[in-house]
Amino acid sequence: MVSKVENFLGIDVGGTSIKAGLINRTGDLLQDETIPTERFSNNETFLLGITSLLQKFNLSNVKSIGIGTPGPIDIENQIILSSANIPNIKNVKLGEHLSKITTLPIFFNNDANCASLGEYHFNELSKTDSLIVITLGTGYGCGWVYGGKIFNGFLGNGMEAGHQTVVLNGAICGCGNKGCVESYFSTRGLLGRFKEKTNLELKDAKSFFKLVEKNDEDAIEVLDFGVLAFAHSIKNIVHMINPNKVVMVGGITKSKDFFYDKLINHLKNIIFPVLYSNLKIEIGKEMSGFYGAASQGFE
Amino acid sequence: MVSKVENFLGIDVGGTSIKAGLINRTGDLLQDETIPTERFSNNETFLLGITSLLQKFNLSNVKSIGIGTPGPIDIENQIILSSANIPNIKNVKLGEHLSKITTLPIFFNNDANCASLGEYHFNELSKTDSLIVITLGTGYGCGWVYGGKIFNGFLGNGMEAGHQTVVLNGAICGCGNKGCVESYFSTRGLLGRFKEKTNLELKDAKSFFKLVEKNDEDAIEVLDFGVLAFAHSIKNIVHMINPNKVVMVGGITKSKDFFYDKLINHLKNIIFPVLYSNLKIEIGKEMSGFYGAASQGFE
Repeated sequence: MVSKVENFLGIDVGGTSIKAGLINRTGDLLQDETIPTERFSNNETFLLGITSLLQKFNLSNVKSIGIGTPGPIDIENQIILSSANIPNIKNVKLGEHLSKITTLPIFFNNDANCASLGEYHFNELSKTDSLIVITLGTGYGCGWVYGGKIFNGFLGNGMEAGHQTVVLNGAICGCGNKGCVESYFSTRGLLGRFKEKTNLELKDAKSFFKLVEKNDEDAIEVLDFGVLAFAHSIKNIVHMINPNKVVMVGGITKSKDFFYDKLINHLKNIIFPVLYSNLKIEIGKEMSGFYGAASQGFE
Repeated sequence: MVSKVENFLGIDVGGTSIKAGLINRTGDLLQDETIPTERFSNNETFLLGITSLLQKFNLSNVKSIGIGTPGPIDIENQIILSSANIPNIKNVKLGEHLSKITTLPIFFNNDANCASLGEYHFNELSKTDSLIVITLGTGYGCGWVYGGKIFNGFLGNGMEAGHQTVVLNGAICGCGNKGCVESYFSTRGLLGRFKEKTNLELKDAKSFFKLVEKNDEDAIEVLDFGVLAFAHSIKNIVHMINPNKVVMVGGITKSKDFFYDKLINHLKNIIFPVLYSNLKIEIGKEMSGFYGAASQGFE
């Protein structure tokens, strides 16, 4: 029997909902709860929401609480500086709030960093020394698990690889800059470039890939350029930090049949042979964001 | 008096010469020797050259030998895989060769990684936890000193940031890829783009910056685009690994008056504020490559 203190609570703050899950070290799900995000109009209501979510769990049965939120964040002071997905909250002192309602250890990091740690802990194939995980959803997130630990960088803002320029003077990104890879290979990027080209607004990535499947020329052109930009973003990461594995997760990977082979063909040609020989590129394990968030307490 | 075993020999393998210097921990130069590189037509003559260089030093007075060479390399097996600057050598087993002529500890790394370590050890201002050094000479090299140690990556190939794509489908680089930042901001890059534009072949960076000084429109246009590409390459590094300092060294920095202010203006606009607030961008200390190479033995 798993000891009761070997259970870990994970909280994943997303744009549409906040999901919490209680798991053990092997990743068995013991309880999960969800609350919608949209009703949070300011910091106070957001924090009240977190409190109500925690109240659904028996915290005496929990070893630690791990939280993942979109950046930019400050992990040292456990503050959400701002959130593109929940625009009404700003400088949320999450750690300070939680310390008032529990004495449990609190871990806090960027959601993509948490996703990387989840892939590391719960996908046996990804237990490697230098693992890059790229989350391809609405945006392009990234995390680096190095020597079994999240590479935090400054205050938890490490590996914001979605906001690397690959197309100088290119399309405007959500971050305000031009030419970030996120503007070319993510739901927002693919739909944005497709709209630019056709003036058609698609509702999601699925609709986009349906057009690709139907050999829509515009969709294929947008995808091909997106895959090229994506490949170069991986090249840049690999030439800099030399991971031995790059894993892709997130909604876009469901359509991998439309881009995986093209991606690998590009990567073979553009990554230095000595580094490519050391590299695996795979689709990761699908799991809820709270797994990785919870696993921050494993050490 | 400095104990005799606290002296460190550094060897810097360059395109035109191999320079060796004996230094102590504080960076005092005790002896230096140089041999030209061009006469090395194959691995054997290259290794004989290294032997003759070592014979000029009293090795009983040396604690360790540190070598820096252009990549790609294999630091684990101490092999120069190939060298763009000395095209006739390949898979040079440098470590094996040196172990036949001395029992001293041998340290081996990429020349840009060594330059970074030199900046860390011999420029008091750069003794920071996460230091990026960019060497702007013929090419664009880069090294990362993290927690006082070179970030080696895989076999010493870490931080090849000069070969990051910033201009998708851009100019062809020496590495065979298109759009690497080295093709826009390095002597090779600036002269190459200037030639593309004007069909004029300039002999060195000095001639290029003389044209800039004379307000030559083509040179200014090439420089401005180069500085923009360079700024985005720094943005990419900073967004990924969040250094607290980026230092530039090398020949191009002599002309900093023509680009430094423009560079900083770009960086202010394109780096996430939380990361920019944590960042210093400076010109580094000028020193021969053997200082950094030698300092590999300091630990």
